[in-house]
Amino acid sequence: MLGSNTIGNLNPHVSVDCVVFGFEFGRLNVLLIERNMNYKGKKFNDLKLPGDLVLKDEDLDTAASRVLRELTGLDNIYLKQFAAIGSPKRLKRLVRDMEWLRSIGHPEEIVVTIAYYSLINIDQDKAGNFVLQPNSRWYKVSEVKDLAFDHISILQQALLVLRADLKSKPIAFELLPQKFTLGQLQQLYEVILGVKLDKRNFRKKVANMPYIIPINEKQVDVSHKPAQYFSFHRKIYEKSNTASF
Amino acid sequence: MLGSNTIGNLNPHVSVDCVVFGFEFGRLNVLLIERNMNYKGKKFNDLKLPGDLVLKDEDLDTAASRVLRELTGLDNIYLKQFAAIGSPKRLKRLVRDMEWLRSIGHPEEIVVTIAYYSLINIDQDKAGNFVLQPNSRWYKVSEVKDLAFDHISILQQALLVLRADLKSKPIAFELLPQKFTLGQLQQLYEVILGVKLDKRNFRKKVANMPYIIPINEKQVDVSHKPAQYFSFHRKIYEKSNTASF
Repeated sequence: MLGSNTIGNLNPHVSVDCVVFGFEFGRLNVLLIERNMNYKGKKFNDLKLPGDLVLKDEDLDTAASRVLRELTGLDNIYLKQFAAIGSPKRLKRLVRDMEWLRSIGHPEEIVVTIAYYSLINIDQDKAGNFVLQPNSRWYKVSEVKDLAFDHISILQQALLVLRADLKSKPIAFELLPQKFTLGQLQQLYEVILGVKLDKRNFRKKVANMPYIIPINEKQVDVSHKPAQYFSFHRKIYEKSNTASF
Repeated sequence: MLGSNTIGNLNPHVSVDCVVFGFEFGRLNVLLIERNMNYKGKKFNDLKLPGDLVLKDEDLDTAASRVLRELTGLDNIYLKQFAAIGSPKRLKRLVRDMEWLRSIGHPEEIVVTIAYYSLINIDQDKAGNFVLQPNSRWYKVSEVKDLAFDHISILQQALLVLRADLKSKPIAFELLPQKFTLGQLQQLYEVILGVKLDKRNFRKKVANMPYIIPINEKQVDVSHKPAQYFSFHRKIYEKSNTASF
């Protein structure tokens, strides 16, 4: 991005890259930036992750937050650092990537990048506050086939971390409304894990989760049989974490 | 360390630091290096984590493995990357740290470090293979109060990650012998978590772990009442991971 910063303030050896997942019911998205360049005399477009070099007086987390703020206008997005990637060849996969680096005045070919991921519910009202930069938008994760540099590998790593976190941390309940149906919970798992789950098996497993509790309320104004609402009890979750002593 | 590498082959902006935990029954250790320097006209010693700058043609994981190989002679130590730390002031906390950097010809004051941790059972036979460099040895974690640069903070972060991993991953069973007593399991948790646990509560929790299975064998040749042996069943563990679908 380089934005308004002059190269003199930047550490040309370390960057941050951000994988911002946008969850909607029905699909999992990722925020990507269109890169426009001239390549072999023709206009060429491809996609990249949001990222930037780190400023010389800047912490890594601060750099990642800055990238997201410049891109979305949002200041309070939670970003989790999940990997540092420093293969010496990571920027040299494609000739057009190296040409592009030269075209933006990037002085170095070795950049260690610190990768962050974030998960936002873009169904919720908050989505209205997003003012995305004109060259960036949400893409369906399952349809992203290639990206600039090694960014497709960074996206794949982020997806593995997100799926592991879904299984080991209560992030599902941060994306769901306070009262939810088991159908919604199953759909959330399906969207993030990228698989279809068997309804009977899923409900059997949920029955073994003492922290998912039915509440005395059902759906109203639905054309099908109204479903029971459930809620997540964090205190019971924390107590039931079996391996903790 | 800088070792046999000339500064020309090094990326002076990125380092790796390794927190190597050495588990024994009774105590948790960490591998530290003694740093000898002249400071204000006197000899001065303190301790640091093993680490080095990354070579220009080297992957981060390779750099971390190299540091450990040079230090211990071991080539197959599992290292887990757990953080990238890039506060611009991280090397400038103490005047003596900056003087030391100059004394070893380090050209930069901003170094992003990629932190790795490892956990080794130093009670087991393998320990005999360790040939530690003369300036390095095991220190009891609870007795380490300060380290060079920001290394005490890196050690504290590693300890938090290790404790979280102990609760969410089956690493306890990689440290235990194939058959173990519940007393050994409890002691392992106590050593790593750094707390005393109530025996009755501990056994109640273990009873809820279907993957810890009593085997038809008891201790022999012990002066106290022989304890039952247990073993860990990985397949049952993987199935019983409650939040996984």
